[in-house]
Amino acid sequence: MAPDEEQAEAPPVIDVATPIAQQIADGDVAAAIALARGLHPAEMARALMGLEGDHRTLLLAQLDLAELAPIVGYLEPRYRSAVFEGRSPTELTRLAVALPDDLAADLIQSLPREDAEAVVAGLSRRARGLLQALTDYPPDTAAGRMTGQVFTVSAHYTVAQTIQALRGQRPEAQQNFCPYLVDDDGRLLAMVEFSKLLFATPGTRLSALSSEAVSVRAETDQEEAARVLKRHKLLALPVVNADGRLLGTLTVDDVLDVLEDEATEDMLLLAGVSEDEALESVFDSVRYRLPWLGVNLVALMLAAWVIAQFESTIARAAVLAIFLPVVLGQGGNGGLQTVTVVVRSLALGRIAPRNTLRLAGSETATALITGGAIGLTVGLLAWVWQGNLWLGVLVGVAILGNQIVGAIAGVLFPMGLQLIRQDPAVSAPIWLTNATDVLGAVMLLGLATLLISFL
Amino acid sequence: MAPDEEQAEAPPVIDVATPIAQQIADGDVAAAIALARGLHPAEMARALMGLEGDHRTLLLAQLDLAELAPIVGYLEPRYRSAVFEGRSPTELTRLAVALPDDLAADLIQSLPREDAEAVVAGLSRRARGLLQALTDYPPDTAAGRMTGQVFTVSAHYTVAQTIQALRGQRPEAQQNFCPYLVDDDGRLLAMVEFSKLLFATPGTRLSALSSEAVSVRAETDQEEAARVLKRHKLLALPVVNADGRLLGTLTVDDVLDVLEDEATEDMLLLAGVSEDEALESVFDSVRYRLPWLGVNLVALMLAAWVIAQFESTIARAAVLAIFLPVVLGQGGNGGLQTVTVVVRSLALGRIAPRNTLRLAGSETATALITGGAIGLTVGLLAWVWQGNLWLGVLVGVAILGNQIVGAIAGVLFPMGLQLIRQDPAVSAPIWLTNATDVLGAVMLLGLATLLISFL
Repeated sequence: MAPDEEQAEAPPVIDVATPIAQQIADGDVAAAIALARGLHPAEMARALMGLEGDHRTLLLAQLDLAELAPIVGYLEPRYRSAVFEGRSPTELTRLAVALPDDLAADLIQSLPREDAEAVVAGLSRRARGLLQALTDYPPDTAAGRMTGQVFTVSAHYTVAQTIQALRGQRPEAQQNFCPYLVDDDGRLLAMVEFSKLLFATPGTRLSALSSEAVSVRAETDQEEAARVLKRHKLLALPVVNADGRLLGTLTVDDVLDVLEDEATEDMLLLAGVSEDEALESVFDSVRYRLPWLGVNLVALMLAAWVIAQFESTIARAAVLAIFLPVVLGQGGNGGLQTVTVVVRSLALGRIAPRNTLRLAGSETATALITGGAIGLTVGLLAWVWQGNLWLGVLVGVAILGNQIVGAIAGVLFPMGLQLIRQDPAVSAPIWLTNATDVLGAVMLLGLATLLISFL
Repeated sequence: MAPDEEQAEAPPVIDVATPIAQQIADGDVAAAIALARGLHPAEMARALMGLEGDHRTLLLAQLDLAELAPIVGYLEPRYRSAVFEGRSPTELTRLAVALPDDLAADLIQSLPREDAEAVVAGLSRRARGLLQALTDYPPDTAAGRMTGQVFTVSAHYTVAQTIQALRGQRPEAQQNFCPYLVDDDGRLLAMVEFSKLLFATPGTRLSALSSEAVSVRAETDQEEAARVLKRHKLLALPVVNADGRLLGTLTVDDVLDVLEDEATEDMLLLAGVSEDEALESVFDSVRYRLPWLGVNLVALMLAAWVIAQFESTIARAAVLAIFLPVVLGQGGNGGLQTVTVVVRSLALGRIAPRNTLRLAGSETATALITGGAIGLTVGLLAWVWQGNLWLGVLVGVAILGNQIVGAIAGVLFPMGLQLIRQDPAVSAPIWLTNATDVLGAVMLLGLATLLISFL
């Protein structure tokens, strides 16, 4: 089959959730469980996330801990709490032991205080030590996201000794067991690429095979650490404390989650949604969205107040009310394009506040062209439609002016927020719409007041 | 130092571009080159991307091919063409040989036809075969993104034979050389985890160590393939053709790029920017943004036409013009929240069109609460401010009604676009704003026309 024929019939993702949901809806929970048990843990996690909340709870309650442990890592973080709900401290302790330690730390942090203490008390001394580092740091730092299952050796180890030591590691470490060389105090010295272990003779000392290790400090923001890993194309990034002691590694699969989470967060924030919601809970949706709608309302009421100052102008030329939403809408749309491009480029590290002037210049140039084209079009339409040349000029000029307001505000607000170390995605769109609404109304209605005898 | 103290002073990313830009601005290109040469290729790529276009061109022209080859892979794709510009076919052939083959394929695809043919003719027969598979498929498929440097062995190989064969591989394969077992026709049978090679005795046959290999078809969309890799927490995902023959692997570092690119694309599309722009080119910005502003203008003019039908109502009660932008703005904002959450959840595979009814229900419930709260607030404000109870009722009801329009349209438009296999991010926001502008205006001004004697 030729490639371009194949193109048309690319296979869709298989829907694993619907057959299970169907069985539950038919009242046959046992059959649903049997279907779920036949899936790879990754697919089982996908099926669970695809179910409605109550079906998910029903199914989870029927699975035992040995079945759940391999699934937890594949569940998106916000679905994990459903696994832990309604389990006794003894069950939770067994689960914590079976989980990789970053997940165990998440589990413990999500529990009420006394349950968390009971679970920690049930762990081995070594496990408690590992978890300590993870729970000491906020979850959005490199240390809060890392896995503690790092494999360290002394520089004087031979290849044979290293392989022997590796055999004793737990299988979770498998994707991540490139050995790190540390000194007697556990400070990171260097790393050994895994392939070198395979090709070297057994008696070679690791110090002869080692190369420099890129690392980040424990308190580094998770997104910044993710970008370091991505930039250096690493599979794991060592995380060290202030003394240079190796605490663990941030692995590439965690980085995939971090970068997607950060993109989701920015995208939702730009639309005024403050948290990634489960889309099922009306209560959460209201809680995450109402505050921003409220703030935006203040902005809109300010615009309304500005418009009210021109009420007598509107009463004399009601036709202005027809074009007011066009002027405000186009300014807001153009400005939001600028804000979005600037916010995303800041997040991807492509631009920095020092580029503000240059960007404001090129965005203004863009706005002159787009605003000119749109202002001319609407101006001509207004002239022909309403038979008034002055109205056309007025509307066209206001549209062009508001496009320029949107471009400049669309650069200055996110850059300014970044400079004062605020998240530019959070409030830049509100400030922007505020600027285009208020200044757009002032331009259209102010000019109209001057030209009222011609309208 | 305690972790929470450290938190406050997390080190910023070091700015590698500014010192180089400074040297170029001072006219000392040689010093700038010397600075750049002192950096790791990953950091050098970051510095190049941080420079202004003409500074970048200046610097690239001074670097020779041996220095450029290791950098290309670290450059974001849209900066790569700058490396290839102004090079002779001979130079480009040398570069193609030095690059990993997915990058070489990109290079060749980006060249004018005769240059591309000259470069391909200069490659070895084996390299031409590898590149063929990459250039046969569109760049946004699994095969278009994969690397062809995959390491295959027969199932009857021993561990010792495999390690011997691995030694002959090129160092780029290093992150990606987990062996895949194939039959005599090159069809993928299974994979061997790398750790098993290290721990097994030299005489063990690979068939005894192998495990099932998750794979995708060559024509699979890159985003879907990226999600398969992410779901199974793989470091490389085998790509096979219709006959099951192994063509190459999609590696985790490419998947990081794919998922970020797709998130960027969706984010920009939601704001009406059709392509990821370089932010320096005014011409590109206009080209990527003007079409959407134009389409949106049609939508806004439709709303203006609707408003014009109520011109006599507005002439009798100019106060309506004050509240019109509030009603339209809040409906659009609320609806855009819904659209954004739905588009992102579709992209992340959390929901599908079959969830439409349930979602429309929960979004409407959310809109009843947020719209009720905002409608009541604005209604009371309008009553007190303008001293007219009926005006307050009218504005409050229109806001509530438009919030519900936004919620329902915000679910139906993206879901409908997904059903007819269109990208929901492209036009859902336009349709949405159209619905809330037109129906919001009809509700406010229609009700006002009925109640005109009370206003």
